[in-house]
Amino acid sequence: MEHVKNKQVLLRDYVTGFPKDSDMNIVESTIKLKVPDGSSDVLLKNLYLSCDPYMRNLMNKPEGPPNPRSYTPGSPLTGYGVSKVLESGHPDFKEGDLVWGFTKWEEYSLLPAAQILFKIEHTDVPLTYYTGILGMPGVTAYAGLFEVGSLKKGEKVFVSAASGAVGQLVGQFARLNDCYVVGSAGTKEKVDLLKNKFGFDGSFNYKEEPDLDAALKRHFPEGIDVYFENVGGKTLDAVLLNMRVHGRIPVCGMISQYNLTQHEGVTNLAHIIYKRVRLQGFNFLDFYHLYPKFLEFLLPKIREGKVVYVEDIAEDLDNGPKALVGLFSGRNVGKQVLVVAHE
Amino acid sequence: MEHVKNKQVLLRDYVTGFPKDSDMNIVESTIKLKVPDGSSDVLLKNLYLSCDPYMRNLMNKPEGPPNPRSYTPGSPLTGYGVSKVLESGHPDFKEGDLVWGFTKWEEYSLLPAAQILFKIEHTDVPLTYYTGILGMPGVTAYAGLFEVGSLKKGEKVFVSAASGAVGQLVGQFARLNDCYVVGSAGTKEKVDLLKNKFGFDGSFNYKEEPDLDAALKRHFPEGIDVYFENVGGKTLDAVLLNMRVHGRIPVCGMISQYNLTQHEGVTNLAHIIYKRVRLQGFNFLDFYHLYPKFLEFLLPKIREGKVVYVEDIAEDLDNGPKALVGLFSGRNVGKQVLVVAHE
Repeated sequence: MEHVKNKQVLLRDYVTGFPKDSDMNIVESTIKLKVPDGSSDVLLKNLYLSCDPYMRNLMNKPEGPPNPRSYTPGSPLTGYGVSKVLESGHPDFKEGDLVWGFTKWEEYSLLPAAQILFKIEHTDVPLTYYTGILGMPGVTAYAGLFEVGSLKKGEKVFVSAASGAVGQLVGQFARLNDCYVVGSAGTKEKVDLLKNKFGFDGSFNYKEEPDLDAALKRHFPEGIDVYFENVGGKTLDAVLLNMRVHGRIPVCGMISQYNLTQHEGVTNLAHIIYKRVRLQGFNFLDFYHLYPKFLEFLLPKIREGKVVYVEDIAEDLDNGPKALVGLFSGRNVGKQVLVVAHE
Repeated sequence: MEHVKNKQVLLRDYVTGFPKDSDMNIVESTIKLKVPDGSSDVLLKNLYLSCDPYMRNLMNKPEGPPNPRSYTPGSPLTGYGVSKVLESGHPDFKEGDLVWGFTKWEEYSLLPAAQILFKIEHTDVPLTYYTGILGMPGVTAYAGLFEVGSLKKGEKVFVSAASGAVGQLVGQFARLNDCYVVGSAGTKEKVDLLKNKFGFDGSFNYKEEPDLDAALKRHFPEGIDVYFENVGGKTLDAVLLNMRVHGRIPVCGMISQYNLTQHEGVTNLAHIIYKRVRLQGFNFLDFYHLYPKFLEFLLPKIREGKVVYVEDIAEDLDNGPKALVGLFSGRNVGKQVLVVAHE
C-alpha cells in the first residue's frame, strides 16, 4: 500500500500576544493514501487553505469549557480549505470530487465526511474563490449584512478592515443595494483599492487619523446605519458615537484585540441605549444553510464582473505560517490564500 | 381669572458627575388655571411623578445634535407622571380624566395633548402604578424581556438593579415563564426582597462580591441566556464572560456609568462573537404600541397577586431633588415615586 510524504503545519505551543512564524513547525510525516476498510472517512488532497483571523483565537491555551476546534500543540492547524477527493468511504463523495469544508494544514487528510461542507459544483470561477468570496468569508459578508445587519436600500454603511476577505464584499454588496459605503484600512494601497477597485464611496487610513470620531463625522455627517465590525477596540468606540437611531452593528470579528493579553476597553456603549442600536455577534456556521441562495445571488454577479475579488496568494505549506501571521500586521492585500497544490 | 401658585423643580445648571439636591431649585411661580382660548393644549394637575435614571442624562450639557428632551437650566424638569385633567382644549380629553405621559415637575402644567400618552381606564389599582408597573418601567421590562430579549420558557435570566422599578418586574415576568432568575442589588435589604418578595431563584449583593465573574459562575454554572442590563460597566464585563451561545442582552440602562465623566471600559466584547450574542439598546418609546396588550397581560396578574410591586414614595415636590438624586446612590428601595398631590 502506497505511503507518501505528507507535509504538515503544526502548532508548536499555545500562543500569547502576537503570533510569530516560529509558533508553527513544518514537519514531514507520512500517510497511507487509502481509506481504511470499513471506514466512512474521506481521503482528501488539500489544494487551497484559507488564512482567517479567527484562527488566532484557536491558538490560545483554552480557558474554561474546551472549544472542540482549539488547536493542540504538536497537531496540525485546522481551517477551511478546498480539497480534491482521492478516495471516499462515504456514499456522498467519490474520487475526483472537489469539495470545501474543514480540513487540516497538510498535503493529505483523512477526515470524517461531516467535515466536508459542500461539494463544488461550479468550476468556471477560480477554485481559490471557495476559500473566500464563495466560501466562509463570502457567506459571512452576506449573512452579516443582510440577515444580522438587516440592511435596507440606501442606508449609510461603514466597514472596517474593508479590503480584507470579508470587508471588500461587504462594501460591494452594500453598493449593489444603493447604499453609501465608506471603508477603513491600514495602508494607502488598500485605501485606494476600496475606491478604485471595489467602488466604495469613501475610504480612509485609520492609521493616519489622529481622531477616528472626527474621521467618521467627516464621512458620515448624518451618522451610520450599519457598521460591519471586523476590528473592535478604538474603532468601535468611535463608531458608537456616530450611530444613527436604530442602527445595527453586525460583529464579525475584532482583529485588533485578538493579540492583546488585556483587551482595550470600549467606553461608549451607553450610546447603544440612546440610539437603540443592535450589536450582534455572529459567525458563518449559523448561516451556512443560506449557501444555495447565496450562490444564486453571487455567481451571476461574479461572471458579469459586477462583484470582484482581490486575493493575496501564498504558495506552498512552507509559507503557511508567514501567510497566517501576516494577517495580524495587515501584510496581506485582500483575501489571504495558501496554495498547497494546484490540483 | 384665577391665578394660583405653582411650585416647580428647576434645573439650576448642567450637571457634571454625581447630581446633588442643590443642582435643582424649588421655586414658586404662578399659573392661570385656564386653557387659552383657541388652544388645543391640556391643563393638568400633576399627581405622581416618576423618578427615573435616564433623567440624569438629560441634565448633561448637550453635545452634538440637540436632544429635544434635554433639560434647560432655569426650566422645570420633565418626566413621566400621572395627572388629572383640569381643562382640555383637545377633544380627546375632558375635565376629570386621569392620564399618564410626559409632564413637568410642577403642580400644574399646560401641555400639548400629544404629551399625554394614555388615558387611565383602570383605577382599581393604585394610581401610582402608572408611573411604574403600569407605566414606562412596566412596558420597558415587558418589551425588553419578550421583544428585545426574545425570552423563551425555561431560560436562565440574570438582571441587575434587580429590585428597581424595572428589575423587580423583569424577574417576576421571567419566573412566570418558568425561567431560572437571579438578580443583583446593592444592599442586604434589596437582596432579601428579591428572593422573599419577588420570588427570584437567587440573588447577590454586587458590592460584597470581590469577583463578579465568580459570583455569576456560582449562580449560573451553565451560563446565562438573557441578561437584562440596567447598570453597565464591570457587571456587563463579567456577564460577557458567562453568556451562553445565542444569548441576548437587552440594554435598558447603564446607571453605573451616567455620573462618570469617563465611562469604564468594557473589555470582554469579543465574547459576543464567540457566543453569537445579541446586545440591543432599546427604550419604551419604541414599544409603547404594545401597551394595550401589556395591560391585558398584567392587570389580571396584579389583581390576583401573582405580580407584586414595591414602591418608594416621597411626598411633596420639595423632596423631589432628593428622591431623584437618591437613585444614583441606590437609596430607594423599589420604584421611586414623587407625590405632588393625592388627587
